[in-house]
Amino acid sequence: MAEFDLIERIRARVAARADVRLGIGDDAALLAPPPGHELAFAADTLNAGIHFPPHTDPVAIGWKALAVNLSDLAAMGARPAWCSLSLSLPEADAGWLDGFLDGFFELAGLHELALVGGDTTRGPLSLAVSVIGLVEAGSALQRAHARAGDEVWVSGHLGDAAAALAQWQAGGPVMPELRTRLERPQPRIALGRALRGLAHACIDLSDGLVADLGHICRASGLGARIEVEALPCSPALAELAVDAGQRLAWQVAGGDDYELCFSAPPQSRPALEALSRDLGLALSCIGAMVPGSGVQLLREGRPWQAPRRGFEHFTGA
Amino acid sequence: MAEFDLIERIRARVAARADVRLGIGDDAALLAPPPGHELAFAADTLNAGIHFPPHTDPVAIGWKALAVNLSDLAAMGARPAWCSLSLSLPEADAGWLDGFLDGFFELAGLHELALVGGDTTRGPLSLAVSVIGLVEAGSALQRAHARAGDEVWVSGHLGDAAAALAQWQAGGPVMPELRTRLERPQPRIALGRALRGLAHACIDLSDGLVADLGHICRASGLGARIEVEALPCSPALAELAVDAGQRLAWQVAGGDDYELCFSAPPQSRPALEALSRDLGLALSCIGAMVPGSGVQLLREGRPWQAPRRGFEHFTGA
Repeated sequence: MAEFDLIERIRARVAARADVRLGIGDDAALLAPPPGHELAFAADTLNAGIHFPPHTDPVAIGWKALAVNLSDLAAMGARPAWCSLSLSLPEADAGWLDGFLDGFFELAGLHELALVGGDTTRGPLSLAVSVIGLVEAGSALQRAHARAGDEVWVSGHLGDAAAALAQWQAGGPVMPELRTRLERPQPRIALGRALRGLAHACIDLSDGLVADLGHICRASGLGARIEVEALPCSPALAELAVDAGQRLAWQVAGGDDYELCFSAPPQSRPALEALSRDLGLALSCIGAMVPGSGVQLLREGRPWQAPRRGFEHFTGA
Repeated sequence: MAEFDLIERIRARVAARADVRLGIGDDAALLAPPPGHELAFAADTLNAGIHFPPHTDPVAIGWKALAVNLSDLAAMGARPAWCSLSLSLPEADAGWLDGFLDGFFELAGLHELALVGGDTTRGPLSLAVSVIGLVEAGSALQRAHARAGDEVWVSGHLGDAAAALAQWQAGGPVMPELRTRLERPQPRIALGRALRGLAHACIDLSDGLVADLGHICRASGLGARIEVEALPCSPALAELAVDAGQRLAWQVAGGDDYELCFSAPPQSRPALEALSRDLGLALSCIGAMVPGSGVQLLREGRPWQAPRRGFEHFTGA
């Protein structure tokens, strides 16, 4: 399969968007942003053996390569518009590619995202995606906008992806519900859009609650106090026969959940509760932004230390 | 060096642009495109061992990783605005990174390009860049817009990069002038901007003249007839003790020159000659667009076949 065949295989699956003046097939795509909007622009790469085990189902890889990028747009309150995909493949394997594209385009289709460019090349398996979203000028959610007195909220449940990874690394079976959360994270686009005007600061949870909320703290010049008992736990995670300390460690320091963590003034609470019902998505208040710095964890009212820190690519998991 | 230190090292070197509402450091950058413009959006990845020898000078890698992307913007007639960089590194080597950033930001500075996002991760050495340029709505150069009767032009000289690669692969010394052309291609941004209104179709020469002009032919439903004697040859390439057939093969089929190839109506010729003087850049008319399909090479008026074809990543050089 030559490079141009690969590109044709990809091109055949791209959905149309009226604001794509010129899609795949020229030196660059031509895109028409609507007036009054800013672009939200992000790029994230997944490498085999680092971000996923080498023999992961290609459908899951395709989904996740895009999901981690859309999750960044969600955290800004942007709606997805266009993306590029740079695909490095050790060999041109049509079956693998079709599976990968199934996962990638299934998620793209859910968010009306158009793939408009990129490249395919030989190399160790790596998926470099960049995404452009649109957000009404001046309305994006930013890490630096938290205020003291804000409540801290998270969407969905925490710790499922870390538990799945731990089960996988232990060589045992992985609970299907947990595995789905690791392999098919749901970028919280609708939530991010709705949070404009309700939340002050927002981030997506890719590296773990403590690490990511820590970014909000640093950017806003504040601290955060989190009640670990308030961290939302999925039924699947609650079922696992592990001690509560391990479970909490996954919840505060495990990465890959791709939920949103945001700070909002107390007066947003009724609107957030209504939003949770509308979206069918749990929104849990887990603490508050406070003067100071850093994320302080409290368990039964007393300072508590998680046994491990958030995932950093250059310092090991 | 942890991931956040790496990012700080990069962030410290980024130039300001007024239209960057929020740069590196949030989930996504926020960018304000000017009214009346379209975005030109491209992404290209360089992998060690595929696109450059593993021990290439990191300064050259930094320059080239960006240059191949800016060259795509040049071919659209767009001016560079913003870019992202996804950097996969086998180890966090501060010396290597500083060299890489020297090359990357030297070129970015020449074109007022702001790095606004991306990620750093562990993995086999790979540089995934995506760029966004701006072009006045409706004025971009496109591959599909060539017309029969257009003259075919190329900028600069052809074949230098292929000759440098051949010298390098032969294990001998590489002529410095040729090496510079391979390692530090000059994206022809000013030329691309000036060609709007003068040229019909345009492409950058990354895979070789025959392969890339072939894209213009296919997209425009035309053929091209090229006089190989008219191909511009640098003094350095002319000096090399190789037979004329080898030299021509590098010129028609060698990749990596990153010159622009464009088609323009004959009445553009005086303006193109003036433009060449203004830019201090050779522009050579090398043939014409004709009814039919494919690129036909003529040598002394007779059909001529290049000994090797353009570079395709999945079929070998």
